[in-house]
Amino acid sequence: MDLQGAFHVYDTTLRDGMQQEGLNPTVADKLAIARQLDELGVGFIEGGWPGANPKDTEFFRRAATELDLKHAKLAAFGATRRAGVRAADDPLVAALRDSGAPVVTLVAKSHDRHVELALRTTLEENLAMVRDTVSHLRENGQTVFLDAEHFFDGYRANRAYALEVLRTAFEAGAEVAALCDTNGGMLPAWVSDVVLDVQTSTGGRVGIHCHNDTGTAVANTLAAVDAGATHVQGTINGYGERTGNADLISVVANLELKLDRRVLPQGLLREATRIAHGIAEVTNVPPASRQPYVGSSAFAHKAGLHASAIKVDPMLYQHMDPMGVGNDMRLLVSDMAGRASIELKGKELGFDLSEDKELATAITHRVKELESQGFSFEAADASFELLLAEMVEGERPAFFEIESWRVVTETVPQTGTAGGRAGEAVCEAIVKLHAQGERFVLVGEGNGPVNALDHALRQAIGRAYPEVAKFELIDFKVRILDQGHGTDAITRVLIETTDGAISWVTVGVGANIIEASWQALVDSVTYGLRKHQA
Amino acid sequence: MDLQGAFHVYDTTLRDGMQQEGLNPTVADKLAIARQLDELGVGFIEGGWPGANPKDTEFFRRAATELDLKHAKLAAFGATRRAGVRAADDPLVAALRDSGAPVVTLVAKSHDRHVELALRTTLEENLAMVRDTVSHLRENGQTVFLDAEHFFDGYRANRAYALEVLRTAFEAGAEVAALCDTNGGMLPAWVSDVVLDVQTSTGGRVGIHCHNDTGTAVANTLAAVDAGATHVQGTINGYGERTGNADLISVVANLELKLDRRVLPQGLLREATRIAHGIAEVTNVPPASRQPYVGSSAFAHKAGLHASAIKVDPMLYQHMDPMGVGNDMRLLVSDMAGRASIELKGKELGFDLSEDKELATAITHRVKELESQGFSFEAADASFELLLAEMVEGERPAFFEIESWRVVTETVPQTGTAGGRAGEAVCEAIVKLHAQGERFVLVGEGNGPVNALDHALRQAIGRAYPEVAKFELIDFKVRILDQGHGTDAITRVLIETTDGAISWVTVGVGANIIEASWQALVDSVTYGLRKHQA
Repeated sequence: MDLQGAFHVYDTTLRDGMQQEGLNPTVADKLAIARQLDELGVGFIEGGWPGANPKDTEFFRRAATELDLKHAKLAAFGATRRAGVRAADDPLVAALRDSGAPVVTLVAKSHDRHVELALRTTLEENLAMVRDTVSHLRENGQTVFLDAEHFFDGYRANRAYALEVLRTAFEAGAEVAALCDTNGGMLPAWVSDVVLDVQTSTGGRVGIHCHNDTGTAVANTLAAVDAGATHVQGTINGYGERTGNADLISVVANLELKLDRRVLPQGLLREATRIAHGIAEVTNVPPASRQPYVGSSAFAHKAGLHASAIKVDPMLYQHMDPMGVGNDMRLLVSDMAGRASIELKGKELGFDLSEDKELATAITHRVKELESQGFSFEAADASFELLLAEMVEGERPAFFEIESWRVVTETVPQTGTAGGRAGEAVCEAIVKLHAQGERFVLVGEGNGPVNALDHALRQAIGRAYPEVAKFELIDFKVRILDQGHGTDAITRVLIETTDGAISWVTVGVGANIIEASWQALVDSVTYGLRKHQA
Repeated sequence: MDLQGAFHVYDTTLRDGMQQEGLNPTVADKLAIARQLDELGVGFIEGGWPGANPKDTEFFRRAATELDLKHAKLAAFGATRRAGVRAADDPLVAALRDSGAPVVTLVAKSHDRHVELALRTTLEENLAMVRDTVSHLRENGQTVFLDAEHFFDGYRANRAYALEVLRTAFEAGAEVAALCDTNGGMLPAWVSDVVLDVQTSTGGRVGIHCHNDTGTAVANTLAAVDAGATHVQGTINGYGERTGNADLISVVANLELKLDRRVLPQGLLREATRIAHGIAEVTNVPPASRQPYVGSSAFAHKAGLHASAIKVDPMLYQHMDPMGVGNDMRLLVSDMAGRASIELKGKELGFDLSEDKELATAITHRVKELESQGFSFEAADASFELLLAEMVEGERPAFFEIESWRVVTETVPQTGTAGGRAGEAVCEAIVKLHAQGERFVLVGEGNGPVNALDHALRQAIGRAYPEVAKFELIDFKVRILDQGHGTDAITRVLIETTDGAISWVTVGVGANIIEASWQALVDSVTYGLRKHQA
């Protein structure tokens, strides 16, 4: 299907989504998110505003060589030229032109008061700015979409001028004008009326960009599509400033599953849950359990009252098959659902549990118990495999025995500085362990306590198992569970390790962040050795 | 205004809302929530299902004497009589009758297959169950509302039967039939069509009860009202099973502020933010920052681009005055901030920077520099205020001078266990500092290194400033920046502290997670002392 054709699914997670309070992704984060968006099959990925900040400029530079997009085209976001200069002479327009992005989404003012107060120019000059910038980028061979900022408010204040901005853009070669409810105050019926009028009055192709300030961003977007819009903008997990943008997955799932419109490549909507959660891992925003379609509770049922009827026909109790978005039905008080997936997962890792129901049930209980303590095996396959091995083989795989460990963090002796900013801190760890009949006591330094422990642990084990030298810790994630308990809270640490060929993830949990990290480190080395010995 | 008259705002937080995964309130919690709902001015509070569980029975018993409702009437929820018995002989119906609630909301099956599979009775008997139960409760003097469960799916499967259930209820004396989208798969236009047909076909008063599975619960509810429904059900904070129920505050705010319908007593919508957060305190579910109208981010602005125009006319950048729901506009400081937003933010914190452009520019540069290192001030207002104070007053506020600190994390001596799970780790911190001319050396223990440092630091400072004893660390967030560098990565720590009256957030950044936490701890105590000395 032509994702850049008759209907556009346009993702702005990396630009408008990152306006959300607390989000501040690195360039590597943005590249990782772009890859996941492409796996969802969106038509366009708005990567940021090249030229406006160094991070976004670097994103487009690296995207050119590091992103190998299968489905999506990259869009660069930016503003029309400044008042009183030629488009070709405006360095911000030049950055868009030179970004390498095949699509440029130009934000333009369409509300008369914003032109006067924010741009501080005349209504006439604003039209010229739209015309010149669109033309200049079109001459450069780029596709241009117009983001008509504050369009709905502008339309109310001065309909004729708001429409004139769109006409100017269309005449200069813009393919789509996305009507932006920038302040987010609209309701579906109003959106519908305006979209109909814009199409009749301008004859141009209309897109829609909604925010969720009234709690109706998804419905507003659907109302626009019903009225004829063929380009929808939104963000994964509804990220965005204030109350967020329209949740793109809800919009797309409603279009495909409720309104029978194909807008993604066949089968890719089934990746939605995985991708929504994967992107939440990168942004480190805990996924909302109640999120439509992809939330962990979205298909969870308090069983009991209707359990027998659910068994006869589950579709009586759910609005769709959760597999359609890669989610799963969950009965909250039953462990029946658990065992089946444990069996499946075990099979994936080479353990046949289908013959021994009792063992599978015992593993399910153990997993539930650990998960209630804060463990999460969803991302930590390696720790899960060690757990399975322990339960199946009767004892946990062990290549070494820890006697003790210790890590000290302290300031280097110097005169204290004002305001409590003491001198730099250094870390030193000592690990004592037994392996292959010998006792090893090694020390490691590091720029943090986990770093120092990692060095000490791998030096000590390396004496017995030289292959450990190849292991490298490549990712370290910390999530505070049960927030609101201050430094008493439970911490979950995920560590990713590579041996150069494959990588694996382990997990540790505890009230003590260092101890949780230590568990994950020990699992990491144990798993690596187990793979290398096999 | 007559809250039990022409338009009903019907809250089901205490019944359907508590179906949410993880919610399990005590009777005292439910009473506390009911009081807050009454302060919002809803017309009806559905308190639970008396007779179905002891907790709800006790709630109604205690409500009779302990709740002094000014605005709302209490509603008891329950099912129609069982098949084959007289209503008067069904103990669950008796519990509704004897609950003391002036209103009973009866859930009834209106979907033919649910009657057969879940109730296991005939369609005819189900009608008799509706008729008998409504009549019996009406004879007892209670107002009866019907919750027509699975109505929309039932209407699709067998329209005639679904309508017959409603007609039966109306004829027996039910005042309202609330159409329930129990599985939550509807979209606004469909809801609207069904509501119109039901009114035409039955002539009865229609209510609406939506779930958010398609992300459109609020819009579905508004569509029903637009089609003629005069009774809206919902929950505070959208609590509920799966993706939750329609968020009642969004529904009401849209009706009052966007559609000019008065549905709450004059002025009470201004309590919405306080009440939404107050109820979240009772349920112990952290409030969603992006929640429409009442979220902490709902009126927060980030883009530096707009700050100069915000100064001229804030209404250009918000869809309504946040005071209308008791919320507040907030400017976020971020790496996109320009001088204008720093000036505005400074003003918010009591620093007038408008006279000294050079200073404002210097602060802007300093903020950008720190944010490029990984600091984030948008959440950490207290650290930002200390930075402003330092720049404006020429030196950083300092109440003490740190000489040195040290924290040790080590396993308690014991024989190592197999698989590297060494014994439990303990933490001990030593802090040496000078304050008010004296030197203090204190030790602190903790279940983690930051906890231990916090104890040592506050003990040491507490010798000089006893008010520090009141400070309590209530939240601790860790974010690994620039993932992919393993334990070398930069860490950002946010700490929230309270003195019992107000709370404040501070930030620390560094490759060493302990050092970053230390910075945030020192800022936290410094800020607290500054406030108390002022």
